[in-house]
Formats: sequence, structure tokens, C-alpha cells
Amino acid sequence: MDTTPLAREITAALPGWVDDVLAPLPETAGEADWMAVVNTLAARNPREGNGGPFAALVVETATGALVSAGVNLVLSSGFSSLHAEVTALSLAQRRLGTWDLGAAGLPAHSLVVNWRPCAMCYGAVVWSGVTRLVVAGSGPELEEITGFDEGPVREDWAEQLRDRGIQVVSDVLREEALDVYRGYREFVTGTGATVYNARGTAEA
Amino acid sequence: MDTTPLAREITAALPGWVDDVLAPLPETAGEADWMAVVNTLAARNPREGNGGPFAALVVETATGALVSAGVNLVLSSGFSSLHAEVTALSLAQRRLGTWDLGAAGLPAHSLVVNWRPCAMCYGAVVWSGVTRLVVAGSGPELEEITGFDEGPVREDWAEQLRDRGIQVVSDVLREEALDVYRGYREFVTGTGATVYNARGTAEA
Repeated sequence: MDTTPLAREITAALPGWVDDVLAPLPETAGEADWMAVVNTLAARNPREGNGGPFAALVVETATGALVSAGVNLVLSSGFSSLHAEVTALSLAQRRLGTWDLGAAGLPAHSLVVNWRPCAMCYGAVVWSGVTRLVVAGSGPELEEITGFDEGPVREDWAEQLRDRGIQVVSDVLREEALDVYRGYREFVTGTGATVYNARGTAEA
Repeated sequence: MDTTPLAREITAALPGWVDDVLAPLPETAGEADWMAVVNTLAARNPREGNGGPFAALVVETATGALVSAGVNLVLSSGFSSLHAEVTALSLAQRRLGTWDLGAAGLPAHSLVVNWRPCAMCYGAVVWSGVTRLVVAGSGPELEEITGFDEGPVREDWAEQLRDRGIQVVSDVLREEALDVYRGYREFVTGTGATVYNARGTAEA
């Protein structure tokens, strides 16, 4: 075959406006403070055209130092896998030069994200090497409000993570996260913006 | 904060030896033929230093035309999410210019891969837009032979895919796939190569 038409490069970039949000902040902060930043990034992301209302940060668990930031890049990158969690975890791995954020010699890392990970990001968390997952919430409200489909997640998802040495902390700024989703819903209704999940069960 | 140290780019490339494997082949083939190619790529991948013994192809379901090829790039890219499935799906999306391989106006697409997807790739399949998943097998043999951890996958994983309009075809060149895993095991034992999963339950 002629292999010329095959794509060979996976390339995506964090948008510059994320820097604008982060630059005024201190280098270290507590988990609730970082969740507030996640909510801010998540609220802005659809309006910037990058993807859904989701953001994630990787921080050093002990110090609260920011390691990486990610937002959902599905629409701007054209890759269905670039959810906020995958983006943040990948950029932390790029910065630290390892595919394992739990490698010997590294400080422990947490992922801070504005809802329970979807079916894909759930596994991505397991493989990333983070040992703590901080989420704003985990109920059906995200799907109910936004029309997004989170996929077939295990009912015992949190226990399974704990069994693998990943602490789960939930309900951090939960109401604020729901406000972001409600704002997104209004944005979609007002603009006809794309809800990026390919095989969603609900139409937004 | 000083945002200069933050990583912003996600970049990875398919290694050139994949082209060498594909170039002598016809443009279109049947699923078993493509699975044989998957097994060939999977067997070679660890020896090239890219990652685990896993490969995947995206093909047009009706014509059998190759759309993209992927191999596990965890070790060479430094990204824990670049399993073979994510690589192949991403490169198909890059080639076709869409995050949805099931978008209106596109032919239906299949993913051909040398075992049941892990906990992460399972969700990645759902979001990709493919409507057919062809695997060499789905039992515990992969983990038993290689020491890889596939993560907490739902027991009803195949039913869930079918409920979402994704056909599942299993046991295509199953014994040949197991031979690849056995060869990988010998390779790891002989060389001390890295088994890439971060939080594996077994040591390879």
C-alpha cells in the first residue's frame, strides 16, 4: 500500500488563556483552592471553543504545588481522548519526563477534577501514577444537567481505585461545579455549541 | 506564579518501522488478515522500545481499507495514555479531521486490536465513534502471561458496548495473539525490559 496518507503525529497544545488564568495565582494552594481554579477553567473552556466544561490539575499532594493544568481539548484538537484528565496527566508526565507520576523518587501526586472521571479517564487515572483523586462530585447531576454521557463506569469505581492505592476525595466545591454545568447548559442552548461525546445517550 | 515551567504540548509520533511493516501489504484486507498485521506489530513493538506488545488498526468496516495504525507508545512517548488503541484512534481522527469516527457522512469504522481493551481504552473506544471492535481474545491469559494489569474493567463490558451500538467480535487469531504474549514474556525475562503499567498487581 501507499502509506503516505497515514497520519503519524499526535499533537495538541494547551491554549494560552489557561496561562492567563494561572499566572496571577500562587505556586502552591490547598485542594479547595485548586478546585476553584478547576471550576474557573471549566467554565471558560467551552466559550473558548476547546471542548466541554471540564478542567483538571495535577498537584503535588504534600506541598500543593501545581504541576500541570489541563482542559478538555476534544473540539480544538480533534482527538476524542483529550479529556481534561488525560490532558493534565499527560502534561504532568511531559514536564516530569516520565509516564509514571508515582515513580520512585517523585513526590506523590493528586489529580483535581470537576467531576468523577468518565469511563475512559477512570482507567487513565489508574495508569497515570497519581495516588489521590479529588473530585467535585460523582452523582448523576453532571449528565442530567449537561447531556454529556460519562459511559459505562463501574458501580464500585471508588473502591477499585482505593484498592489500587488511589485515595478518593469527593464533594469539594460540589455546588460550584454544578453551577458551571448549569452555565454550560445555558451556553449550549443559546449558541448551539457542540456536545462532544460521540455516542451520547442524550441530545444537548 | 511563574507559568514558564508548565508543559503545554502533547506530541507523539508513530515510529517509522510501522510503515515498513505496512508498505508491502494491500490497501484492503479482511479482519483476520488485519489481525495478523496487529500481531506482527505487537510482537515487534517492545523490541523497538516503544512500549508493550500491543497494536491496533482502524479500518473501514465495509471495505476493509486501512485508515490508521497504532502501537503502544507509553515508553517512547512518556505518556501513560498512549496505548495502542488510543494511538490508532487518534491517528484515524487526525487523518479524517474529526473527533468522531462515527460522524454523519463517514463510512463505519472498526478497531482491530490484539486483546480486550484495558479499563482506559474501553472508554476510549466508546468515545471514538467506531461501531465495531474486533479483538483476538478477552480472557485472563493476557495478564497471566505478561504480568500486565488491565485494570478494573466491567464484567459486562461487551454488553455495554453492544448497547451503545458497538459490535464486538472476539477470538480472531487468539492463539497467535497468545504466542505474541509468550514471546514478550521471554523478552522481558531475558532483557529486564520495562512493563509499563504504573500500578500493576503483578511484577514482570
